[in-house]
Amino acid sequence: MTTTLEDRHPSRTGGESEITERRDPVRWGSDPGPLSPEQLAAYERDGFLILPDLLGPDAVDACLAATRDLSRSDDGPGLVAEPGADDELRSVFELGRHPAFASLMAMDVLAGAARQLLGSDVYIHQSRLNLKRAFTGRGFPWHSDFETWHVEDGMPAMRAVSCSVALTDNHTTNGPLLLIAGSHRWFVSCPGQTPDDHHLQSLRRQEYGVPDHDSLRWLAARGEIRPFTGAAGSVAFFECNTMHGSADNITPTPRASAFFVYNSIDNQLVEPFGAAQPRPTHLAARGDVRSVAS
Amino acid sequence: MTTTLEDRHPSRTGGESEITERRDPVRWGSDPGPLSPEQLAAYERDGFLILPDLLGPDAVDACLAATRDLSRSDDGPGLVAEPGADDELRSVFELGRHPAFASLMAMDVLAGAARQLLGSDVYIHQSRLNLKRAFTGRGFPWHSDFETWHVEDGMPAMRAVSCSVALTDNHTTNGPLLLIAGSHRWFVSCPGQTPDDHHLQSLRRQEYGVPDHDSLRWLAARGEIRPFTGAAGSVAFFECNTMHGSADNITPTPRASAFFVYNSIDNQLVEPFGAAQPRPTHLAARGDVRSVAS
Repeated sequence: MTTTLEDRHPSRTGGESEITERRDPVRWGSDPGPLSPEQLAAYERDGFLILPDLLGPDAVDACLAATRDLSRSDDGPGLVAEPGADDELRSVFELGRHPAFASLMAMDVLAGAARQLLGSDVYIHQSRLNLKRAFTGRGFPWHSDFETWHVEDGMPAMRAVSCSVALTDNHTTNGPLLLIAGSHRWFVSCPGQTPDDHHLQSLRRQEYGVPDHDSLRWLAARGEIRPFTGAAGSVAFFECNTMHGSADNITPTPRASAFFVYNSIDNQLVEPFGAAQPRPTHLAARGDVRSVAS
Repeated sequence: MTTTLEDRHPSRTGGESEITERRDPVRWGSDPGPLSPEQLAAYERDGFLILPDLLGPDAVDACLAATRDLSRSDDGPGLVAEPGADDELRSVFELGRHPAFASLMAMDVLAGAARQLLGSDVYIHQSRLNLKRAFTGRGFPWHSDFETWHVEDGMPAMRAVSCSVALTDNHTTNGPLLLIAGSHRWFVSCPGQTPDDHHLQSLRRQEYGVPDHDSLRWLAARGEIRPFTGAAGSVAFFECNTMHGSADNITPTPRASAFFVYNSIDNQLVEPFGAAQPRPTHLAARGDVRSVAS
């Protein structure tokens, strides 16, 4: 007997954009953990939480060294170049290959916070470095990660959280992550349908899974657009359905960020809800996933 | 007998970029005026001065109505479209055609401040609206206005000041004007040579008169990059040689700004220092210029 999961968040079904109220909790548990009640309340209200200077210089330096190692490693599915510039590295996936990132993503201030928010053990759904170069670093269009993870990867529920670790200083001026406060409370279905092997293109320049302008206006009218700024070592947690994006970096100051996506062990991937084939496991772990040790 | 002015700021002469110390004063007079000694000191130090909420809502509303009028007017040399989007208006020149802008640019808080900074009567060298649309509004690459005005228009000395009037709210997130503090103290000569009729292209997407990355890094290492943020009605004065630029606007919040460039009546244009033909007068007034009434 096959169990078929209901698609509770249909998107890219060929119709128009539609905005519906969120159906899942934002915070899934009530156990204590590294986050204070005030921090939890801010996360629930805004869909994100910024923790300035959470990590010390040693952790940051170790990750910067690991960034250099991974960026120099041979070509592979884990390396993605900038749109229109094959020789400029934009993203590196599967950071757990490097011990510096493996120990960082298991730290209690990160993984423990994720467990606290998701009310269960967690595993790494995806990890990546985003390198936004000086002068030429390209932005990311507005999107909800959950929309992609649901449609293309088969993530059933909104029970995942992204953790962005600033490895360099994030200023307002060098293309920081922008988040729409409160947008996690709404699900925006996107127009169009997912082409085959969409990820080969979308990681460089995303075209599907991008909400229309009216939906973005609607969300931004209800909550301020806020940048994630802070010195290297600052951390932002953002809920998997929080609408976010970033502009190009035109300044001489490059940015490097590590992203760890913690998913609940009870929210593992099923078949994609809107794509013919699941994406490769370096983009979306499935099958033999291991909980992050607590 | 013909008097030939020495080119004290050579640029686009076919050589490499070069950074030289400024040869002209920043403040040209010492008469009192609308700016306080502290404001004058900040302008001299940073090369710009931000005056939050300088203009009231009536002045802003009148200019927004004028913006709509001018944007709807027939095609002409004063209208410039976005790069790659012929139907999206990027800039409108010659604002003095509209009474709302004509009276704004003559107000003592603006023109009087310019007279105070430049130590003489002033005239409008150029005036323009910059419309940075929601979602698709494109940025401007880093540049010194003086470099262009000297090379392409024949402005002899650094004795002009730009006044940017925010007609909509400027946030850090919607592609605000970015200024490099202290950059006005250096002249960066630019590589390349000016092609004929460069302005037909440069106002949409500038390629010449753009400093190289090393020079920008050098300037930014000496002074912070600061955004001009503030509510509608806020004003920024920036010295004609201050390095500035802006990123794209990816947010749902459009921006509209009016720029008035005040030049000293004693600094009128001569033949261009690095172009075969002067640009048209809607970009650079010459000949029969009139002082702004005091």
